[in-house]
Amino acid sequence: MALIVQKYGGTSVGNPERIKNVAARVASYRKKGDQVVVVVSAMSGVTDNLIKMAKEIMPLPNEREMDMLLATGEQTTIALTAIALHAMDIPATSMTGAQAGIVTDGVHTKAKIQNITPKSVHHLLDAGNVVIVAGFQGQTMEGQITTLGRGGSDLTAIALAAALKADLCQIYTDVDGVYTADPRIVPQAKKLPEISYDEMLELASLGAKVMQSRSVEFAKKFGVVFEVRSSLNDNPGTIVKEETLSMEGVVIRGVSLDKNQAKVTLVAVPDRPGVAAHVFKAIAEANINVDMIVQNISHNQGAPSTDISFTVDKPDLLKAKKVIDSLKEKIGFRDVIADEAIGKLSIVGVGMRSHPGVAAKMFETLAANGINIDMISTSEIKVSVVIELTKGEQAMKVIHEAFLGK
Amino acid sequence: MALIVQKYGGTSVGNPERIKNVAARVASYRKKGDQVVVVVSAMSGVTDNLIKMAKEIMPLPNEREMDMLLATGEQTTIALTAIALHAMDIPATSMTGAQAGIVTDGVHTKAKIQNITPKSVHHLLDAGNVVIVAGFQGQTMEGQITTLGRGGSDLTAIALAAALKADLCQIYTDVDGVYTADPRIVPQAKKLPEISYDEMLELASLGAKVMQSRSVEFAKKFGVVFEVRSSLNDNPGTIVKEETLSMEGVVIRGVSLDKNQAKVTLVAVPDRPGVAAHVFKAIAEANINVDMIVQNISHNQGAPSTDISFTVDKPDLLKAKKVIDSLKEKIGFRDVIADEAIGKLSIVGVGMRSHPGVAAKMFETLAANGINIDMISTSEIKVSVVIELTKGEQAMKVIHEAFLGK
Repeated sequence: MALIVQKYGGTSVGNPERIKNVAARVASYRKKGDQVVVVVSAMSGVTDNLIKMAKEIMPLPNEREMDMLLATGEQTTIALTAIALHAMDIPATSMTGAQAGIVTDGVHTKAKIQNITPKSVHHLLDAGNVVIVAGFQGQTMEGQITTLGRGGSDLTAIALAAALKADLCQIYTDVDGVYTADPRIVPQAKKLPEISYDEMLELASLGAKVMQSRSVEFAKKFGVVFEVRSSLNDNPGTIVKEETLSMEGVVIRGVSLDKNQAKVTLVAVPDRPGVAAHVFKAIAEANINVDMIVQNISHNQGAPSTDISFTVDKPDLLKAKKVIDSLKEKIGFRDVIADEAIGKLSIVGVGMRSHPGVAAKMFETLAANGINIDMISTSEIKVSVVIELTKGEQAMKVIHEAFLGK
Repeated sequence: MALIVQKYGGTSVGNPERIKNVAARVASYRKKGDQVVVVVSAMSGVTDNLIKMAKEIMPLPNEREMDMLLATGEQTTIALTAIALHAMDIPATSMTGAQAGIVTDGVHTKAKIQNITPKSVHHLLDAGNVVIVAGFQGQTMEGQITTLGRGGSDLTAIALAAALKADLCQIYTDVDGVYTADPRIVPQAKKLPEISYDEMLELASLGAKVMQSRSVEFAKKFGVVFEVRSSLNDNPGTIVKEETLSMEGVVIRGVSLDKNQAKVTLVAVPDRPGVAAHVFKAIAEANINVDMIVQNISHNQGAPSTDISFTVDKPDLLKAKKVIDSLKEKIGFRDVIADEAIGKLSIVGVGMRSHPGVAAKMFETLAANGINIDMISTSEIKVSVVIELTKGEQAMKVIHEAFLGK
């Protein structure tokens, strides 16, 4: 008998029929004798509709009240899921985040879990119940309802698995697991049976949008092994866990392509100390996230000058350009170039640490296929390059073939 | 400065635009310097939609889970109402029933309020907030979410007014107040400036569906004076309060017609002790509410026999007839007649106590207009008669004219 935490997202519980399917899956584990805790999101569309109504009343609604409002979405799903289990003669009890003992700080709309006291959950499990917990929500010590922000339901599941010392945590989604590359672009892509937290984190921060980074970080911190798998079939998914020795045998785990980046270049910046600091302080103050930064000195025009390039999320490009334009007089660069037509191609793998020459092989492969590299950034287990957007998918295919085979 | 509790029903908060109207009304009281507690229902249609989803999954869903589910309706409205007040620059905080300190027993879907600890409400009011409380819901001592059943939001408002020692409790609805008769049937009907709890109770148990009896009973028990008025205009409504001497000067307060009754008659029942007890025990065990009962002995066929007639709500008629049919052999009556084509006409007024001849005048007026009386029942402040349904509206008009003028 195992204790399993299962999380189902908004699409998996999108209507009463799908909620019945979730119940049937829970029932199949229950029949094997497992104890099951189910974490559910709001039914797809519900949260958006609540936000729409609030914004109809006021464009920037108060965050405490947004939490009060949005928490109803998950509360609706837990009750319906419990009823669906009852319809299959399985004892089941729903719990709000507060009732499940999830205590958060008071930062409304993006609260952090402070601790979980799962006494009531244990009690209900021991009495033979499936326990259905509302994802995405908690309560402060003072009894205020909070929500955890984007990816909050995954976080609830992983945090509950940690607090309950669960044997297994399953994140059900609409994909079969984590792939070596996006199978829509690279048909040869294979599903990974396992992946380390760090690799998953690098992929999460890139184009592979299976899970939010914070949930993976939480799992890493508390050593929660979890499986990403599909709610549409019974295929085994991808196990995400601490790095093992055998993982190092594989040079790279996956390739990802992020098309959501844009590049800003400051041309001919006077080479004075403090210029870069000035630029990125202004960008940070405008709440714009910068990903890659590259700076190159050139000496070809008398006084030494430099080009500074950086990438931002596409939706932030206009704002970033405005900020830079406002600095022109003070800094004295020649021009600003904004380029949306870029893609960021990354390879990720803990095996890089022990396999020298991975970056070189990537660059060579791209060169051999006539693909020019614009910017480079590396971490211990990742190499990213910025290339022309139009060559992105071709690049992904050749890199996948070079490292992961046909 | 007064402390006012205002309650708005589902139609008054049916969409974001209407919620803004509610906020504007609250703001107008706030500007006079009043402290305002607002109790709201679920937006119209929301509760029905939640029930529909639950029944799609299971015809008879568990009551604890129904409370978990339905409580989201009011929680949505309180958040949106708080946001609407913020949009008018008025400090406002929403509270679930649990947060407002409303403690109930554990009878899910029809919980009773056990006590209210309005400390947090007072605290927020004193800090300058409008406090918006979710109607219809509470929490048990053990932290289970409960709902109060039909008319629950009115009950929340009246109970809060009692606990807060409010100066005024206003029940906003889609009618202007309580009338001497249904104005759609009797155009001469007048709005009553005031009415006693007992008269309101008799009217509530009759056709006048302004409020559920239990809310009026609660108000009577705790001496909460409240006003029933329209959320669509600024007309004063009807004040419901303890009987005063001046009320006795009016012979009758109003006339009502209940078209939702049906009559069952057992013909030629042997006149033995215990027969009536047997009949109504069986009816009670089938959970059917009986309103009027009439029994008449006849001696015209040798052995004394009797006819027993009683009225039930129309939706219960078939069930009632089945119960009676099942008793035929044991009791030995001749026949059962079920009649849906009846109406119950009632006159209500505390003045009857001191004005003899009220019933006689009612019967005479009906006779003079060729309307036959089928059953009669009276209380200290009410006379009800069952008549043919087709004559119901004519009867209402002539009785209104006879007692309340043209």
